[in-house]
Amino acid sequence: MSYKHFINSPTDLVASALRSIPATNPALALDAENKIVYTRAQEPGHVAIVSGGGAGHEPSFVSFVGAGLLRAAVSGTIFASPSVRQIYHAITRRVTPNAGVLLIVMNYTGDVLHFGLASEKAAAAGIAVELVVVADDVGVGRAKNGKVGRRGIAGTVLVHKITGALAADGGSLGEVAALARLVVAGLVSVGSSLGHVHVPGHSEGSGEHEAALKGDEIEVGMGIHNEQGFKRMKIPELGELVRLLLAQLLDKGDKDRGYLEDVEKSEGWVLMVNNLGGVSPLEMGGITAEVVEQLDSSYSINPKRVFSGTFMTSLNGNGFSISLLRLVDTGLGKGKSMLELLDAPHEALGWPAIVKPATWENKTDKIPSDAGVEEEIVPASKLKMDIALFSKILAAGLKKVIDAEQEITKADEIVGDGDCGMALKQGAEAVLRFIADDKVVTDAVVTVVKLAEVVEEHMGGTSGAIYSIFLNSLAKALRETGEETATSSTWATASHAALVSLRKYTPAQPGDRTLVDALQPFIASLVGGKGIAAAAKAARDGAESTRGMKASLGRSVYVGEVGDTLDPGALGIAVLAEGFAEVLKA
Amino acid sequence: MSYKHFINSPTDLVASALRSIPATNPALALDAENKIVYTRAQEPGHVAIVSGGGAGHEPSFVSFVGAGLLRAAVSGTIFASPSVRQIYHAITRRVTPNAGVLLIVMNYTGDVLHFGLASEKAAAAGIAVELVVVADDVGVGRAKNGKVGRRGIAGTVLVHKITGALAADGGSLGEVAALARLVVAGLVSVGSSLGHVHVPGHSEGSGEHEAALKGDEIEVGMGIHNEQGFKRMKIPELGELVRLLLAQLLDKGDKDRGYLEDVEKSEGWVLMVNNLGGVSPLEMGGITAEVVEQLDSSYSINPKRVFSGTFMTSLNGNGFSISLLRLVDTGLGKGKSMLELLDAPHEALGWPAIVKPATWENKTDKIPSDAGVEEEIVPASKLKMDIALFSKILAAGLKKVIDAEQEITKADEIVGDGDCGMALKQGAEAVLRFIADDKVVTDAVVTVVKLAEVVEEHMGGTSGAIYSIFLNSLAKALRETGEETATSSTWATASHAALVSLRKYTPAQPGDRTLVDALQPFIASLVGGKGIAAAAKAARDGAESTRGMKASLGRSVYVGEVGDTLDPGALGIAVLAEGFAEVLKA
Repeated sequence: MSYKHFINSPTDLVASALRSIPATNPALALDAENKIVYTRAQEPGHVAIVSGGGAGHEPSFVSFVGAGLLRAAVSGTIFASPSVRQIYHAITRRVTPNAGVLLIVMNYTGDVLHFGLASEKAAAAGIAVELVVVADDVGVGRAKNGKVGRRGIAGTVLVHKITGALAADGGSLGEVAALARLVVAGLVSVGSSLGHVHVPGHSEGSGEHEAALKGDEIEVGMGIHNEQGFKRMKIPELGELVRLLLAQLLDKGDKDRGYLEDVEKSEGWVLMVNNLGGVSPLEMGGITAEVVEQLDSSYSINPKRVFSGTFMTSLNGNGFSISLLRLVDTGLGKGKSMLELLDAPHEALGWPAIVKPATWENKTDKIPSDAGVEEEIVPASKLKMDIALFSKILAAGLKKVIDAEQEITKADEIVGDGDCGMALKQGAEAVLRFIADDKVVTDAVVTVVKLAEVVEEHMGGTSGAIYSIFLNSLAKALRETGEETATSSTWATASHAALVSLRKYTPAQPGDRTLVDALQPFIASLVGGKGIAAAAKAARDGAESTRGMKASLGRSVYVGEVGDTLDPGALGIAVLAEGFAEVLKA
Repeated sequence: MSYKHFINSPTDLVASALRSIPATNPALALDAENKIVYTRAQEPGHVAIVSGGGAGHEPSFVSFVGAGLLRAAVSGTIFASPSVRQIYHAITRRVTPNAGVLLIVMNYTGDVLHFGLASEKAAAAGIAVELVVVADDVGVGRAKNGKVGRRGIAGTVLVHKITGALAADGGSLGEVAALARLVVAGLVSVGSSLGHVHVPGHSEGSGEHEAALKGDEIEVGMGIHNEQGFKRMKIPELGELVRLLLAQLLDKGDKDRGYLEDVEKSEGWVLMVNNLGGVSPLEMGGITAEVVEQLDSSYSINPKRVFSGTFMTSLNGNGFSISLLRLVDTGLGKGKSMLELLDAPHEALGWPAIVKPATWENKTDKIPSDAGVEEEIVPASKLKMDIALFSKILAAGLKKVIDAEQEITKADEIVGDGDCGMALKQGAEAVLRFIADDKVVTDAVVTVVKLAEVVEEHMGGTSGAIYSIFLNSLAKALRETGEETATSSTWATASHAALVSLRKYTPAQPGDRTLVDALQPFIASLVGGKGIAAAAKAARDGAESTRGMKASLGRSVYVGEVGDTLDPGALGIAVLAEGFAEVLKA
C-alpha cells in the first residue's frame, strides 16, 4: 500500500474532511468541536436517526446525513470510536429528539459501549431512545467470534437507508427500530483485501500487518480496520475468490456461519458491492459483474437492486466487500417495503442517485432493437459525375503513389517510423481494386463516401484517419453544393471545405511539416482556377518546403526531427497531385 | 503504487466492467461487441449526446449514460481511444439521431481523430452531427502545448451534465453544441498525483514512469494517463500545493496559462474536486476543504456548487484534480442557466444525487441554534429517598473499594493491564467528593444520573463506561417504577433491570471472568429479598468463582489468561457490596 498522502496529520485530516461536508451539501451543519454533522432543518415529528463511529470509513457516516437518511453522524478519530460526550451531545443538542432517537452503531466494543452509555444517559434524561447494533460481517465464523459476535461492516448503510426513509415517512420509533432489527437479521457481508491500509501519520515500519501480507497474498474476510479475517492465501482468480465469498455469505450448511435468518421468507435480494477505497472504479465494475453472474449461475439469485460503489471504506484500502440483504415483508404496508424505502428520495451525498423503481421493474436483458439509421446505406445525392473520367484520374494518381513507395518510406524512415509509404501503398491498392471492381458510381457523393470507407479500412492508423476525414468531409461538401453535375470547380470548392473541416481534428498548418504543407497549396491553387498542372506544381513546391523543416506538433502524430528530407505525408500528396495532372494533360 | 489487482487481464477487466453497468442501472443496455453503453428508452425528438474515450477513467464515461445526461458512451481499451467503427456504430445504430447528435470528446489525438472521422462519416451519411472537443487541463502551459492545445480531463463531466440537461429539455443541436462550447471556454482543470498508476496486465518493471517518481515526490499537473505535467517536486504541504494549483487555474497574469475566457462576465463559479481513483474519501474531504477555504481567502470565490468525488479516474491513481467553471449567461432563458442545468434531475449513476437548488440558495455558514433538550437538566422524578442513609451506605462501599486498591491492582496485573484498581479508586474518590459536597438530592433518579456522570468523567475507559451504563440504566428503571419512596425492594428491582440493560452492550455472562460474575449473583440475591448481607456473600462467592476461570470474550476488553487469581472487576463489586452490607448491619 502507498504510504504517500496529501495530508499527513491524522488530526488535521479528520478536522478538514469534516469541514468539506457542509461545503458540498449546504443542507448540513458541522459542530466541529464535537465532530457532529447534522441537518440544518429538522422535522421534530420524525424519529431522528443518529449514527457514527471512527473516521476513515467515509462516506460512512457523515455523508449519509441528509433528508431521507441520517439526522446526524458523530465521527471519532481515525479508526476510533467517538466519545460518549460527543454522542450524547449529538442526541441531546444536535437533533430534535421529540419523536425519539434511533442510534445505529456497528458492533465494535468501543462503539457499542460509547453509544450504549450515551443512549442510557439520554434515556435516563427522559429521551425515548433505541440502539440497534449492526453485525453483518461473516468474515470470522462463530467459533472464533465467540460471544462478541460479528463485526459491523458495509451492509450497515443499507440499514441506514431503509430506516432513514421510514423515519422521513413518519414511522414511529418502535417501527423504525423494529425495521432496523429486521434488516440486520437478513444482512450478511464479507470483505477481502490485497493489502493492509496505511493510516496517515503512522510510521511506515510500525505496522506489523504490512509486513505480514506478502506481495502475492490476499486476506479473505479482512475487516475495515485491517483486522484479521477468514484466512490469508495466494491471490486466487477473481472467479474463485467470489465463489469462496458467496459460499461464506449463503451456504446454509456452514455451521460456523450460515448467519442469515428468515431466508425461507425471502421475497428477493439486494446486492451491494463496496469499494474499500483504493480499488479503481473500472475494477469495481469487473468485480460487480462477476458477483452478479455467480449469484445467478450458482444460486439462482437475481438481486432486485444492485449497488456498486464506495459506501464504507477502510481509508484507501485495496479491497472490496459484498453485502447481501434478503428482503422480507416489513408488515408496514404500502410504500414501506424494504425496496420502496431503498428507492425513496433522499438528499445525502454519500448515497447514489436513485434509479427509478419503474426502471428496475422493467429490467430486462434484451438488447433493444437497433435505433438509428441503417449504417450501410448512404443516402443518394443529385450530384452526378463521369465514372470513366473520375476513375481514370484517380487511378493515375494512385499508381504514382504506389511507384513512390520506396521514396516515401525512405523519407519516413529518417524522421518517422517508416510505415507511411506502405500505408499509402496499401490504401492506393485498395482503391484501385475498388475501381477495378466497378464500384465507382455516377453519384459523386456516394462514391466518395465509399472511398473513405475503403481508405479507413485499408490504410489504418492516423494517416488513414486523416485521409478518411478529408474524404468524408469532401462528400458532405459535395452533397451540400446542391449541384447536379460535378465540374472541376465543384471538386475544388468542396475540397476546400474538406480542408477547413480537417482543421477541426488536427492543428496542423503549413509550416508544421505535415501533409498539409502540400495539401493546402494544392487546394488553394485549384480553387484559384489555375488548372491541375499549376495545382500539382504548388503541391510539389509545398512538399519541397518541408525539407529541413522542424515538426512542431509536439504531441501530434507527426513527430519528427529536422532532416534534409521531405515530409513523407506531403510527398505523398505531391505525387498524387502529379498523377492527376499527368492524365488530364495527356 | 500497488501492482496488486483482483483482475489482471486488461481485456477481461474492461469487458466485465462494462457488463456491470446494466446490472446496476437497468435503464441502460450494453452492446458488448462494440463496447457501447446506451439508454434503452430514447426520445427521438431530443439531441443525442454521445461521448467516450479510453477505459480506465470510470465513471467516465459509461456511468454518465442515463436520462438527463449522455445518450451513449463508447469505451476503448485501457487508456486507448475507441475505434472509428465503434463510434460510428454508436452514432448510427445505438441512438436515435433524428434531432441530431452531439459528440463530446477530450483533446487527445486518437480520440479527436476517431470521433472526428466518425462524425464526418455520419455527416456524409446525412446525420446532423456536431463535435465539441474539451481541453480544460492547464497542467501544461501554452509554450509546451504548442498547437496541440490542452488535454481534456475531469472538467469534461461538467460539460456532459450541463448539455445533457439541455438536451433532455428539448434544446436544439445548435443550442446544445453552442452551450457545450460556452462551458468549455470557461473551464479550467489541473491535476496532481503522488504516483503513476499501474495498468493491470503490464509488467511491474516496464513502467519508466514508476522508476522516475520517487518516494517523496509529487507530479504537479500530471495527466490522467500518467502524462508529464508542470513539474515534479518534493511533496509540499497541502496548503502550498493548493496555492500553486489555484494560481495555475486563475492567475490572469500568467501568460503561459491564463486560459479562462469571459471571466469578467462571470456570474459565479462551480468547483469540482475529483479523485483520480486511489485517494481515500477521507483525504478527498480534507483536500476539498483546503481548496474551498483558499478560493475564499485568496480569490474571494465562494463557488455556487461544490462537487467532490470520483468523476474521472486514472484507474486507482493516488491523486486529485481541481476544476473550476465560471458561470455566464447561457442566453437560453428561464430554467436553462448553467446552474439550473447542473441541478436538473438525472438517472445516471456516475453523477451524484442532486442537492436541491433551494438548499444551495439558503446556504449559510451559521450554526443552527441548538436543537434538542438542555443536556444539563435531568427531569425531576417523583421517587424520593433518604439522603443521609443513601450517602452513608454508598460511602461505606466506596471506602472499601479504595482500601482494596492494591489487591485489585495485583489481580489485574496478572491477567490485565493493571489499571483496574486505580480506575476504581479514582471513581470512588470522585463519588465521595460528590457526597461530601452535598450533591446527593432526595430525588433518587436525579442523584443516580449525576453519579453516572461523575463515574463517566473520573473512571474513564471501558470499566467507567460499564459502570456508567449500569447507573444510567438504573436511573431509568427507577424513574419507571412510578413509586414515590425508594425502598430496598425498589433498588433491587431497578438494579435487575439495569443488569438486563447492560447485556445490550456487553456479551459478558457469569463464567466469562468479568465483573458480571459478581454483579449478577449480587443483584439476584437482592431481588430474592434475602437481605444485603446474603447479597454481599453471593457477590463474594461469584468473585471467588472467577479464580482460575478463563476469559472467554476474545475481542472484549476483558481479555486475560487463566490465573489462580480473581477477576479484578468482580473483586471490586464484591468489595463494594461488602461495604454496603457492613454499614446496614451496623
